[in-house]
Amino acid sequence: MIRTHDAGALRAEHADETVVLAGWVGRRRDHGGVVFLDLREASGVVQVVVREDELAHDLRAEYCIKVTGTVRVRPEGNANPEIPTGDIEVVADHIEVLSESAPLPFPLDGSQDISEEARLRYRYLDIRRPERGAALRARSEASYIVHDVMRRHDFVNIETPYLTRSTPEGARDFLVPVRLQPGHWYALPQSPQLFKQLLMVGGMERYYQIARCFRDEDFRADRQPEFTQIDIEMSFVDQEDVIRVGEELVAELWSGILGHEIPLPLPRMPFLEAMDRFGSDKPDLRFGLELRELTGYFSATPFRVFQAPYVGAVVMPGGASQTRKELDAWQDWAKARGAKGLAYVLVQQDGTLGGPVAKNLSEQERAGLVEAVGAAPGDAVFFAAGARRASQELLGAARLEIGTRQGLIDESQWSFLWIVDAPMFEEDGEGGWTPVHHPFTGPKPEWADTFDKDPGNALAYAYDMVCNGMEIGGGSIRIHRVDVQERVFETLGIGRAEAESKFGFLLDAFKFGPPPHGGIAFGWDRIVALLTGGDSIRDVIAFPKTASGGDPLTGAPTPITVPQRREAGVDADPEAGKAS
Amino acid sequence: MIRTHDAGALRAEHADETVVLAGWVGRRRDHGGVVFLDLREASGVVQVVVREDELAHDLRAEYCIKVTGTVRVRPEGNANPEIPTGDIEVVADHIEVLSESAPLPFPLDGSQDISEEARLRYRYLDIRRPERGAALRARSEASYIVHDVMRRHDFVNIETPYLTRSTPEGARDFLVPVRLQPGHWYALPQSPQLFKQLLMVGGMERYYQIARCFRDEDFRADRQPEFTQIDIEMSFVDQEDVIRVGEELVAELWSGILGHEIPLPLPRMPFLEAMDRFGSDKPDLRFGLELRELTGYFSATPFRVFQAPYVGAVVMPGGASQTRKELDAWQDWAKARGAKGLAYVLVQQDGTLGGPVAKNLSEQERAGLVEAVGAAPGDAVFFAAGARRASQELLGAARLEIGTRQGLIDESQWSFLWIVDAPMFEEDGEGGWTPVHHPFTGPKPEWADTFDKDPGNALAYAYDMVCNGMEIGGGSIRIHRVDVQERVFETLGIGRAEAESKFGFLLDAFKFGPPPHGGIAFGWDRIVALLTGGDSIRDVIAFPKTASGGDPLTGAPTPITVPQRREAGVDADPEAGKAS
Repeated sequence: MIRTHDAGALRAEHADETVVLAGWVGRRRDHGGVVFLDLREASGVVQVVVREDELAHDLRAEYCIKVTGTVRVRPEGNANPEIPTGDIEVVADHIEVLSESAPLPFPLDGSQDISEEARLRYRYLDIRRPERGAALRARSEASYIVHDVMRRHDFVNIETPYLTRSTPEGARDFLVPVRLQPGHWYALPQSPQLFKQLLMVGGMERYYQIARCFRDEDFRADRQPEFTQIDIEMSFVDQEDVIRVGEELVAELWSGILGHEIPLPLPRMPFLEAMDRFGSDKPDLRFGLELRELTGYFSATPFRVFQAPYVGAVVMPGGASQTRKELDAWQDWAKARGAKGLAYVLVQQDGTLGGPVAKNLSEQERAGLVEAVGAAPGDAVFFAAGARRASQELLGAARLEIGTRQGLIDESQWSFLWIVDAPMFEEDGEGGWTPVHHPFTGPKPEWADTFDKDPGNALAYAYDMVCNGMEIGGGSIRIHRVDVQERVFETLGIGRAEAESKFGFLLDAFKFGPPPHGGIAFGWDRIVALLTGGDSIRDVIAFPKTASGGDPLTGAPTPITVPQRREAGVDADPEAGKAS
Repeated sequence: MIRTHDAGALRAEHADETVVLAGWVGRRRDHGGVVFLDLREASGVVQVVVREDELAHDLRAEYCIKVTGTVRVRPEGNANPEIPTGDIEVVADHIEVLSESAPLPFPLDGSQDISEEARLRYRYLDIRRPERGAALRARSEASYIVHDVMRRHDFVNIETPYLTRSTPEGARDFLVPVRLQPGHWYALPQSPQLFKQLLMVGGMERYYQIARCFRDEDFRADRQPEFTQIDIEMSFVDQEDVIRVGEELVAELWSGILGHEIPLPLPRMPFLEAMDRFGSDKPDLRFGLELRELTGYFSATPFRVFQAPYVGAVVMPGGASQTRKELDAWQDWAKARGAKGLAYVLVQQDGTLGGPVAKNLSEQERAGLVEAVGAAPGDAVFFAAGARRASQELLGAARLEIGTRQGLIDESQWSFLWIVDAPMFEEDGEGGWTPVHHPFTGPKPEWADTFDKDPGNALAYAYDMVCNGMEIGGGSIRIHRVDVQERVFETLGIGRAEAESKFGFLLDAFKFGPPPHGGIAFGWDRIVALLTGGDSIRDVIAFPKTASGGDPLTGAPTPITVPQRREAGVDADPEAGKAS
């Protein structure tokens, strides 16, 4: 090692020792004849005192230097309690420039607002900033914890292929032309789902992997074309076994990284209850403000809009004092979400109801409304009416928006829960059914015989973990019986030929004594962002991509040359065999 | 859990306990009224005794079953010392079939020669075989050891991108069309080399990753289009620091998985010595049989073939008794390696020399030859003459072939060493120079000033780890100074514009105070194959591909549909921007 000591580990006990340090020049303060430098490296920062001008005058920010000097306790009154090395400083005898730095595109200290484009373009400078580097180090520490927990429970870490076959999941596959088989393409896996199920058929019994996944999705905030999940699958288990492992994993992560003890077992909430009460399948329980269903209340309403299969409301505390402009903005907000608008009444301080909706209601409806929705004078009440699910989701989104605007969310709290008993199927809008999870998700045991007779009510043996209103993990007990799988395909309108072409190799495998099995996958980038307080998963990915999938650092993606294209067999006709 | 006990963990102390087990039906033996089944699962195998015919008669091989029964000590004389559960058996009260199995495409016990195609097509059955499953479990255990070692030394586990920019290394990139930027392509990384160097510039100081790498190479035995490496990079280090970490890693793996203690430090051998003595840059030291250089010996030879810049020989003990056919086969062997043939003399029992070469030599040459090459009566001596490197490589290959044929290799031995002081450059055959490692490999400190003046002799600051004649790891101290990097590019004939277009983002990063750094990468698949005694890396990859890159299980790769092709933007003209 070029250095003898880690700069950040120096303490008063090292006083009078000669040390060799290496790192980067941070802040610099000149005090007539004496220069104070912050020397920064992985272990922390130490103050270096350079007495002779000739040593120091060439040192600019982010020069990489080697310092030979002596540790001394700082003079009385000069200690800096804010850094661990604040009691000492290093008096430099000799400084060697290991490499120089050009002027920086942006300062590395302070909290200036730097464009994300610039930060990604110079990502290697961005991650020199201590808080950025710390996030990557925390991610690493978290991965060690994952390995510990899985190892303790005899899980087998298995790598599954990244060059594989295109299979239909929720998103598009990334494709890779195969030079040795011109006209044929690999696909990058959207998840290891099928492989982990094959590993269960193969008798591995307990599998996990920190797996990269690839989804070619259109831009959505905070999505990346490649992302990482903690992928877990277990044989001979039921839901309780998977839930227990998932809870232990999360509890150890929060304890190990944040020192926060999550009380176990986590609460569970059925899917329909979450929709009814919070208008979300990933409710944020850090605040109340539950939805109120008013379908019965308005069963005889004269107001045409409320003559609907579902009417519900959410209260905005203090919302009656909003300006006309603010109330109009809610309409735009609702329209941006695909709704027609957001009906509301304003509860005046005298208890009367304001706003355009009120006059459409019957006197009786107006009289009981405040009590029915649990509002108080000064509140606004927002309504949604129409199809149950869509209306609840609109109210659920309004609830979150209200929670944020009114400061109702306790940011210091951690709210974990499981959402269970999700529907197996939902209507596809064309008279058929589509799976809520994926077509290998098993029915709850009590629905095993009847799920196909009553698909609208059948419940899946599935469980999603929610933290602070975000889904951080999800899984299910899979179908392992061929007859059950066939009934699911029938319900979904997937014919034998289609099933064979899409999932044939998995169905083949299930002919050979597949064990009962189930699993879960956790969104690793999101979990690490939560653990490190990052706003975005981009903060916890070493080299993230922009919304359009570009990397400003390397310039990827790029056009390819004609010879590259020819060689890769991009334009080969697979029917013509090897001739391209 | 469906089971109460792990079948493989049952011992005499469990006698009389009621247990519920779950696993697969292995061997079955019917003894008139009583059936003995092997129940196999992850923890091992236990014998199940089924007394009633109706319970057992439907159970075929690889049915997945749940057994409720009572543990009992086996009757006197019936214990099976070959399995850990051999003292007991489980008397079944109830058996539930969890799933049935179709007739198997190949038996899972025994050592029948099954085609690799079939084993890969039914990989989930192949890995049910205990030795196959054990290899995957050992790979997992080995990965835990890697994490332990790296964690102990404060390494940061960082994931680098798999969707990145095409950069020229030794092989072709796999390419991925980008739908959101039609006409633009990602490349899958051949290694994280550039990203790990960027992480060093970013101040991460100690990085590692168990990283997937992608290389689109033509068929070579035991290559896979995707493979895994243990990728390590460190800042502020010299060669000794990287070597020490690499040695500790390997020592812990061999100790943890095999109980074999590797003596450290490992021996080191300069590259040129390895070539001179063993004709290989990855010598197998489990046997001797060193090459003898005869260039001086034949300096005045009348034999035209030996009038060459290099003449060398290797002895084949007992080789004089080979038949004419065997000796001819050596000629074919040499031609298949691109040589013209393999000159030889046979040392007869009376000390005279036989074979076609002998008569071309001078009397004096014949007289001293046996001593000069260290042969004995009954040996054959093989010669190579010509360019030094190519001739030594031919002799090195002959040495290995001899070692194998003559049983000279002690298969129980582990031979580790470092090859150091490799040349920085080699001639590219067109009057220029090409890097032996990669263009970021630094010169040895003593060559820092002169490597470009004497590129043919300059030594790289590089080190390769060799085990039993296979390179299992390699790395170098990198160049971190822009001026040194520029001199390397000049030596390689890479102009400024070309360097900028190929490596611009790394050169840019090096403008901002890059630290001195170096690293190493280990071939993980090969290491695990060595640890598990696998013949091929395919044995230790869960879902490997065939030589042509196909996966007989999933059928990958496949043709894509016209809509897939259109949507992926495969045929878009990047010049035309977003219009495809």
